[in-house]
Amino acid sequence: AALEEAFHQHQPLPSLVGKHAIVTSGPTHEPIDPVRYIANRSSGKQGHAIAAALAAAGMRVTLVSGPTQEPVPAGMDFKPIESAQQMLAAVDAALPADVFVGAAAVADWRVASAADQKLKKGADGPPALVLTENPDILRTVSQHPKRPALVIGFAAETEKVLEHAAAKRVRKGCDWILANDVSPETGTFGGTHSRLFLVTAAGVTPWPHSAKTDAARRLTHAVAEYFSTMRDA
Amino acid sequence: AALEEAFHQHQPLPSLVGKHAIVTSGPTHEPIDPVRYIANRSSGKQGHAIAAALAAAGMRVTLVSGPTQEPVPAGMDFKPIESAQQMLAAVDAALPADVFVGAAAVADWRVASAADQKLKKGADGPPALVLTENPDILRTVSQHPKRPALVIGFAAETEKVLEHAAAKRVRKGCDWILANDVSPETGTFGGTHSRLFLVTAAGVTPWPHSAKTDAARRLTHAVAEYFSTMRDA
Repeated sequence: AALEEAFHQHQPLPSLVGKHAIVTSGPTHEPIDPVRYIANRSSGKQGHAIAAALAAAGMRVTLVSGPTQEPVPAGMDFKPIESAQQMLAAVDAALPADVFVGAAAVADWRVASAADQKLKKGADGPPALVLTENPDILRTVSQHPKRPALVIGFAAETEKVLEHAAAKRVRKGCDWILANDVSPETGTFGGTHSRLFLVTAAGVTPWPHSAKTDAARRLTHAVAEYFSTMRDA
Repeated sequence: AALEEAFHQHQPLPSLVGKHAIVTSGPTHEPIDPVRYIANRSSGKQGHAIAAALAAAGMRVTLVSGPTQEPVPAGMDFKPIESAQQMLAAVDAALPADVFVGAAAVADWRVASAADQKLKKGADGPPALVLTENPDILRTVSQHPKRPALVIGFAAETEKVLEHAAAKRVRKGCDWILANDVSPETGTFGGTHSRLFLVTAAGVTPWPHSAKTDAARRLTHAVAEYFSTMRDA
């Protein structure tokens, strides 16, 4: 009942007070040239809500975010970035931390050699857009010498959601994955609600379809329980 | 003096009242897959300001716009779109018109075959992003059977601004080009101010560095003068 009350009242949670969380949020923008870039439909709503919920629970929060329309949240250290490379650098600089939540939709690829000048439409037809892999932030954090005790990733999928999420958890070496069905018809990207599944080593827990702010508080309580159990052990 | 007064008071301009303008604004988003897209840094501020100024001068305005953070302007027919192909279809449906102002930053290229499912990071490395040319909306309107009397394009350039703009005017077959230096250091994209050059068959007129709303009123007055002269001739 006390937990339920705290859930609704944004009270500090004892096992979290004073601990440090790094949260990533939003999309990344990968430059093609000075005016064009590759983006994705992440709104930053979920990541920003998680950062706010962790801060409300008493954590010191570093929020590293790509360009979004969300208001810059108060009461935390806000690090705005554009590209995946910039995001990794900001996360690296913010370590050590007790918790990492990778809620950003980090671009898997960037353009191999972004142009200094605007690409012109020429007689030769469209330019070849050669892509190269971006750094894998979730995996880098999971294998980092300063690895946080709890590393949480997201899996935004449009098919075989749980299967892909469980495989991703093992492949990245993170502790938890929040799996997310982002098929266009679900309205998750940009929307206020989502349907999440918490995937851990112990299995899958479906969370109710809910507001992203509620999902953020649910995650905060799961994190608090994790540290509470750690302390008792 | 009367003109100067109207400039500042948003009064209807007699030569424009009841005429129809189609204005495009904002970026286009070209899908790569359900979650990724190619975008550009256009904010829609200039196009929206032009649409508002033309409407304030008494024109009937159709505003065809890609995704922006600008408020949907009142007092006009607003057609939201995402891709260049959708923008052309909306412009085509809105013809005939007396004036066309192409202020949108239309993507020159789109992805040849956008994927139905989210592209996965695989062992094969990054996917090849094959681009294909988008329809050229300014040129299509300039050569349209229902061509407006006055077709105005923008040239957003990062180098050789006036040279590129003059060549573009001839190549597209439009009447006027507003040339725009969008080098990142100018802060034009996303900013509230710009430095424009009006390029016509008669030559180049540099406009003062000013707020985009002032540039919009300056253009409106140039358009009014054009129709005023036409009527007198």
